Amino acid sequence: MKKVLVIHGPNLNLLGQRQVEVYGSITLEGINQLLSGLARELKVEIETVQLNSEGEIVESIHNAKDRFNAIVINPGAYTHYSVAVRDAIASVGLPAVEVHLSNIYAREEFRHQSVIAGVAAGQISGFGPQSYLLGLRAAVALLEGPKK
Amino acid sequence: MKKVLVIHGPNLNLLGQRQVEVYGSITLEGINQLLSGLARELKVEIETVQLNSEGEIVESIHNAKDRFNAIVINPGAYTHYSVAVRDAIASVGLPAVEVHLSNIYAREEFRHQSVIAGVAAGQISGFGPQSYLLGLRAAVALLEGPKK
Amino acid sequence: MKKVLVIHGPNLNLLGQRQVEVYGSITLEGINQLLSGLARELKVEIETVQLNSEGEIVESIHNAKDRFNAIVINPGAYTHYSVAVRDAIASVGLPAVEVHLSNIYAREEFRHQSVIAGVAAGQISGFGPQSYLLGLRAAVALLEGPKK
Amino acid sequence: MKKVLVIHGPNLNLLGQRQVEVYGSITLEGINQLLSGLARELKVEIETVQLNSEGEIVESIHNAKDRFNAIVINPGAYTHYSVAVRDAIASVGLPAVEVHLSNIYAREEFRHQSVIAGVAAGQISGFGPQSYLLGLRAAVALLEGPKK
Amino acid sequence: MKKVLVIHGPNLNLLGQRQVEVYGSITLEGINQLLSGLARELKVEIETVQLNSEGEIVESIHNAKDRFNAIVINPGAYTHYSVAVRDAIASVGLPAVEVHLSNIYAREEFRHQSVIAGVAAGQISGFGPQSYLLGLRAAVALLEGPKK
Amino acid sequence: MKKVLVIHGPNLNLLGQRQVEVYGSITLEGINQLLSGLARELKVEIETVQLNSEGEIVESIHNAKDRFNAIVINPGAYTHYSVAVRDAIASVGLPAVEVHLSNIYAREEFRHQSVIAGVAAGQISGFGPQSYLLGLRAAVALLEGPKK
Amino acid sequence: MKKVLVIHGPNLNLLGQRQVEVYGSITLEGINQLLSGLARELKVEIETVQLNSEGEIVESIHNAKDRFNAIVINPGAYTHYSVAVRDAIASVGLPAVEVHLSNIYAREEFRHQSVIAGVAAGQISGFGPQSYLLGLRAAVALLEGPKK
Amino acid sequence: MKKVLVIHGPNLNLLGQRQVEVYGSITLEGINQLLSGLARELKVEIETVQLNSEGEIVESIHNAKDRFNAIVINPGAYTHYSVAVRDAIASVGLPAVEVHLSNIYAREEFRHQSVIAGVAAGQISGFGPQSYLLGLRAAVALLEGPKK
Amino acid sequence: MKKVLVIHGPNLNLLGQRQVEVYGSITLEGINQLLSGLARELKVEIETVQLNSEGEIVESIHNAKDRFNAIVINPGAYTHYSVAVRDAIASVGLPAVEVHLSNIYAREEFRHQSVIAGVAAGQISGFGPQSYLLGLRAAVALLEGPKK
Amino acid sequence: MKKVLVIHGPNLNLLGQRQVEVYGSITLEGINQLLSGLARELKVEIETVQLNSEGEIVESIHNAKDRFNAIVINPGAYTHYSVAVRDAIASVGLPAVEVHLSNIYAREEFRHQSVIAGVAAGQISGFGPQSYLLGLRAAVALLEGPKK
Amino acid sequence: MKKVLVIHGPNLNLLGQRQVEVYGSITLEGINQLLSGLARELKVEIETVQLNSEGEIVESIHNAKDRFNAIVINPGAYTHYSVAVRDAIASVGLPAVEVHLSNIYAREEFRHQSVIAGVAAGQISGFGPQSYLLGLRAAVALLEGPKK
Amino acid sequence: MKKVLVIHGPNLNLLGQRQVEVYGSITLEGINQLLSGLARELKVEIETVQLNSEGEIVESIHNAKDRFNAIVINPGAYTHYSVAVRDAIASVGLPAVEVHLSNIYAREEFRHQSVIAGVAAGQISGFGPQSYLLGLRAAVALLEGPKK
Repeated sequence: MKKVLVIHGPNLNLLGQRQVEVYGSITLEGINQLLSGLARELKVEIETVQLNSEGEIVESIHNAKDRFNAIVINPGAYTHYSVAVRDAIASVGLPAVEVHLSNIYAREEFRHQSVIAGVAAGQISGFGPQSYLLGLRAAVALLEGPKK
Repeated sequence: MKKVLVIHGPNLNLLGQRQVEVYGSITLEGINQLLSGLARELKVEIETVQLNSEGEIVESIHNAKDRFNAIVINPGAYTHYSVAVRDAIASVGLPAVEVHLSNIYAREEFRHQSVIAGVAAGQISGFGPQSYLLGLRAAVALLEGPKK
Repeated sequence: MKKVLVIHGPNLNLLGQRQVEVYGSITLEGINQLLSGLARELKVEIETVQLNSEGEIVESIHNAKDRFNAIVINPGAYTHYSVAVRDAIASVGLPAVEVHLSNIYAREEFRHQSVIAGVAAGQISGFGPQSYLLGLRAAVALLEGPKK
Repeated sequence: MKKVLVIHGPNLNLLGQRQVEVYGSITLEGINQLLSGLARELKVEIETVQLNSEGEIVESIHNAKDRFNAIVINPGAYTHYSVAVRDAIASVGLPAVEVHLSNIYAREEFRHQSVIAGVAAGQISGFGPQSYLLGLRAAVALLEGPKK
Repeated sequence: MKKVLVIHGPNLNLLGQRQVEVYGSITLEGINQLLSGLARELKVEIETVQLNSEGEIVESIHNAKDRFNAIVINPGAYTHYSVAVRDAIASVGLPAVEVHLSNIYAREEFRHQSVIAGVAAGQISGFGPQSYLLGLRAAVALLEGPKK
Repeated sequence: MKKVLVIHGPNLNLLGQRQVEVYGSITLEGINQLLSGLARELKVEIETVQLNSEGEIVESIHNAKDRFNAIVINPGAYTHYSVAVRDAIASVGLPAVEVHLSNIYAREEFRHQSVIAGVAAGQISGFGPQSYLLGLRAAVALLEGPKK
Repeated sequence: MKKVLVIHGPNLNLLGQRQVEVYGSITLEGINQLLSGLARELKVEIETVQLNSEGEIVESIHNAKDRFNAIVINPGAYTHYSVAVRDAIASVGLPAVEVHLSNIYAREEFRHQSVIAGVAAGQISGFGPQSYLLGLRAAVALLEGPKK
Repeated sequence: MKKVLVIHGPNLNLLGQRQVEVYGSITLEGINQLLSGLARELKVEIETVQLNSEGEIVESIHNAKDRFNAIVINPGAYTHYSVAVRDAIASVGLPAVEVHLSNIYAREEFRHQSVIAGVAAGQISGFGPQSYLLGLRAAVALLEGPKK
Repeated sequence: MKKVLVIHGPNLNLLGQRQVEVYGSITLEGINQLLSGLARELKVEIETVQLNSEGEIVESIHNAKDRFNAIVINPGAYTHYSVAVRDAIASVGLPAVEVHLSNIYAREEFRHQSVIAGVAAGQISGFGPQSYLLGLRAAVALLEGPKK
Repeated sequence: MKKVLVIHGPNLNLLGQRQVEVYGSITLEGINQLLSGLARELKVEIETVQLNSEGEIVESIHNAKDRFNAIVINPGAYTHYSVAVRDAIASVGLPAVEVHLSNIYAREEFRHQSVIAGVAAGQISGFGPQSYLLGLRAAVALLEGPKK
Repeated sequence: MKKVLVIHGPNLNLLGQRQVEVYGSITLEGINQLLSGLARELKVEIETVQLNSEGEIVESIHNAKDRFNAIVINPGAYTHYSVAVRDAIASVGLPAVEVHLSNIYAREEFRHQSVIAGVAAGQISGFGPQSYLLGLRAAVALLEGPKK
Repeated sequence: MKKVLVIHGPNLNLLGQRQVEVYGSITLEGINQLLSGLARELKVEIETVQLNSEGEIVESIHNAKDRFNAIVINPGAYTHYSVAVRDAIASVGLPAVEVHLSNIYAREEFRHQSVIAGVAAGQISGFGPQSYLLGLRAAVALLEGPKK
């Protein structure tokens, strides 16, 4: 059975308690439950982790190398400057799907640029918790290879 | 039954016959069949159209106003400069999902900017034909409102 | 009797049905009636046209060459990138007045630049339907030459 | 009876004596007479003032607060950098119409940007003395509210 | 016999009637006759088309795919922003020669950049009608392969 | 008989021995022979020179002033920064044709700008040795004046 | 007893009557009374002045040279462009504290830059009337030298 | 009694031992003692912490959420790029005062920009240890609400 | 006898008392005496004025129009942004020589640009009081016309 | 005996297992052995550490202060944005040598800038494992002072 | 007797024969005669040299080191990019006066920047041949030290 | 025996006589002796040359092609703009090591960019004469291939 690591980046632990107009009222726990449900449906195993430190995200990606088949990552604020996370993704060679709850292109100018996107397989942005679910589907599709 | 309009932008009629290393070998017809299959599964109606002219895309969006509940659009090259398409989306008030076959953030610098993204509900980029399928799922999720 | 062509650019057909907080509640039909009234008062003939396609706007300007004495144009979204419309105006040699319903300088950054303004006789921006009426007056004044 | 203050910015006292190829041969006195004629026609009172000092323009706007219903201003060179004039307009809360004799968008690059436009109701540029007359009409229209 | 498609972009239909100081006094018809003469000399067939609409240029390039061996294109104003035309050229895989009547590098700053040049085989700019003739020669040379 | 000076800029002496994937396998000698052949056909005299030093290119242009009727120049690396070569061309008043073997607009960003192009009659880029042959034809056409 | 000059820049005379959502409802008179109270507490003398003209602010700073020990200045709009005020501060050699009622870094982009800050001892921004009180404390602390 | 968390960012543990010409000779311990003294005077409780890791600062802010009423933070080097710290401040909803020992606007260009300032209540920069004391006063004033 | 107006811009009244390492120890009075001596030698009349206000400099230039033959101006801080002073010089049509005590190109980046230089006859920068003396000589030479 | 600390930044633990075409096939362990061999030859002691977290690198530099005489650091991805690492190096006052395995100037644009280089003694880039060996030699040379 | 070297940069040998509307009709010989006359009057010796090659200008400056007391240099096109000439001036330690015939700030944008000015004592631009004469006076004044 | 060419760029002949605070007191002769000593130790032959002219450096690199195995080059001022030197290095195909005496990243902004670095094997900057010695070691290591 394929295994997918889901990484929630900095500040996402406060989800549902914070800036509800931007991020919605669902908690991280809630998102993880939705993901678990979908994983069962898609017949993959998932593991979820929330990390605020750039260095820990880097190491979490390293450790995924031999234990997982793909990564779904919401890099949060690190999206915009963490070349370290970018390099970590590039170096482990696992397909990675970048997801964002909010539409980063409809927010402040400095959130329009992702240094991660260039090494991700693809990016999904703006659909709230659905971004994660679509991200998991995308990861599974990548593992299954091109349709037909 | 909800109806979703899928718009394929300029040059996508050549899909499968062109730059296969960038866009893959599936044809537009092939993508439309995948979409039809998924629409049946999701219990929505879809209509697909391929248009090379900016003005025709604008008018296609206008006409969707009273006939569709959501739009999935791959604006192709117009992604990067067509304020007219942007304004059309903003003016009809339908939720729109922007999709791209290739990861536009891993290509030439000038493809990193989307003038459409700011008025779309969200964006999905880089998963080949899956981008469309995820986009249709996203559109349907938007119509169903927030999970739980 | 002098003749003035009034060109309404892309998306303006939806006027009054769309983004009322930005563009107001008057319809394009309503604006055209106001223009007709003013034209009678100023003793000029007008013709109005709404076009969503860049190429059709270019050709509409070409065709104005021998049939009209001046142009009033709201280039809509094309204001910001259509060098083709700019070149069309420059090439027919008719005085052109650029008008905008909203104050483009009080909106998004990318709307602050007009590629048309450099070849127009002048620009009027921000007065809602009045922008058109002032634009028609400006065009007529240009045809009458300098006051006194 | 509504009252409109017309402010002529720096160097406009030399009008008609200076760079005639750019600004035309009419004098400031001539423009003021045209404005008076139009004011009578539109049944409003106007007062005109020419000021070279940024600080005096700021104070002139302040003083307009309780004595006038609208402002027509040609900020001249201050158009391009006077945040102080911008703030003055924003702070008195009167509708302001920005006018320019020449088409500032067809001149040197540094004249393409107006720091005033963002707080003005609208802008009229490029019609010579007519810019002022159209500006007065625009101000009166703003005071009368939307047409119909 | 090799076949070359010559595409004249927007506004070129007005050639000879417009801005003679920039584009010269020859008409499009005149240029087409020069091209026909040279085609006979070079023993190739040519077809010429003038199109004002970006979408029609895109489709004209698509249609050239199986009917022509090379393209000579003067993209006119679209030179500077039409990624759609660029993608069309890239997708049909025919060698394309970009030509300009005027020296675009000696004109306004915004005309110094071509989004087409990166996918064209080469570019010829500034020689008036000769640019087309040199462009046709270049296209034929490309079809014949490297000299010697 | 008209005389044309052909200037080969820096590093072109290594042609055919260097970066063959960019510049092709023909040597400078080979290009000069092609040029001589075409010169005979066009009934002009040519002289060719290869110079690595900016100062020597400047002086070579100066000396051309009374001895030649036109210049064909491949400024090589100096294309991108040598205002001295630009000024030399501007000061001698001879028509100059700028040529490039490779398509400079399809290479590194810093090669997209030519400081020479603004004072050249025109530019030909991307056709390998053909760029020189087309350049010589262009120079001769410039000397003959407008076709018809 | 140490003396501190407090300079209120352009438009601050309208405080409390204008844009209350940005600047609060306190009047300039109110701020001056708070400052007087604090001055008594800190055992310093203060003088306050409000000036709309850049030239008068420059001269007010000059005159402070021999009469005051420090300056607290809210340069208002001049913050963003008045090199003249900057040079005046640099030339009199008095420690100057730059204060702002609103958080200039949370407002329009053009308000994020201060040309004054580079020559001020320090800057306090965003605390409403408290910015002045903290500024006076800062000025007094500067006069007393480093703590301990 | 109100509680204020004071966060000292990276490298501040070396204070007094390092670059004395920039940061002064006081140690962090010394600053904390000054803060304690002022806290007693202002009748608030404070807690101070020094953290070199971005992730730990993020978590320290999270933990402050239910235990403190306000934050005084010197983000040190993270001022200029840590969107993660910015988001943490925005998400906990506590008023935050950004302080800097040195005048960041009088140092290297890259220190002129703060990504934190946009979500802080205000910023105090340049007064050495006084910046902290003024920052604590500002935080207390924010908790007490507007003066009068 | 020819008459030259010498305008000393903002803050120059403090000369010799301020930033001696940048501007030297001579006072404005001292410079004016040097200028008077040179004026006698060159057989021209001069008048000197020092003004801190942009508006007064504008008016001083206006008034020079019929009373002087040339202007020598040190615009001080206004050099870098006063389009009003630029326009004043352009509008009176007198030859103007821009002078600076210090080498503005060896100082802060923001002092490298002069908005005045484009309308001045020429600029002299960096020679201390000699800049004025050379400026007066330059003005006189301009009035005498080209040497020989 | 002099002691040198060698810091390997983020992702370098994966060396030899990752992107071999960029970084080569040697492992970190292999590099450390080469360094040990050279240290013996140069008669210095070395200690090596690999850290993925920015905060830990900062603290590792702090701790080096009294235990080492110099630092050799490959900041990896932090090279391009970690002002915190820069400040740490500046604050401990040890000579630091910045090294990179790959030539950062021949890679993506965003890798061309180092925020560390300005406070390092020098930089060595592009020689694979040799970069470290040369870096150790450079550090030792710095400790020995200028040759001769 | 003091000795001054006058260096005429690239293309200046064509003076009087070229672009007379920009540079005037005087020849280099004519300027040198004017300079000789002034040198006699000022009781200094001068030597003049015209060089087209950047390397020769560098060496000419080197050789001036022990033979001259000051340099007057018109760097021509090298003004805008020759860091080599800049470094040569900086390295010989002689006072250098940069002169330009035309007002470089009233010409093309790319001529507004001088890389030489930062190491010159000062710059004189725009007075035709007088620029040289004023430059020689400036050099002599620099050698005599501050006036009084 | 392997042969290495060492090229010293412009102004380096003045080493030890110039700006000693930047470049140190060693002469070029001194550096060449250090290099000779190291060459003997490393059992390679070296040849050193100092050239001020860009063209001569280009030709020196050309000539190295068949006579040397590697190049060590300090391009001096040409580092920042000489695309000609860059192209010369790229065209001869020898491994080249770029060295700088001073840390170019700790100097003026315009020295932070090297146009050479992209085609060099690597770069060493900031270690004074040691930069050359490390550069020679690097060149020899490149010739020997990867360690182990």
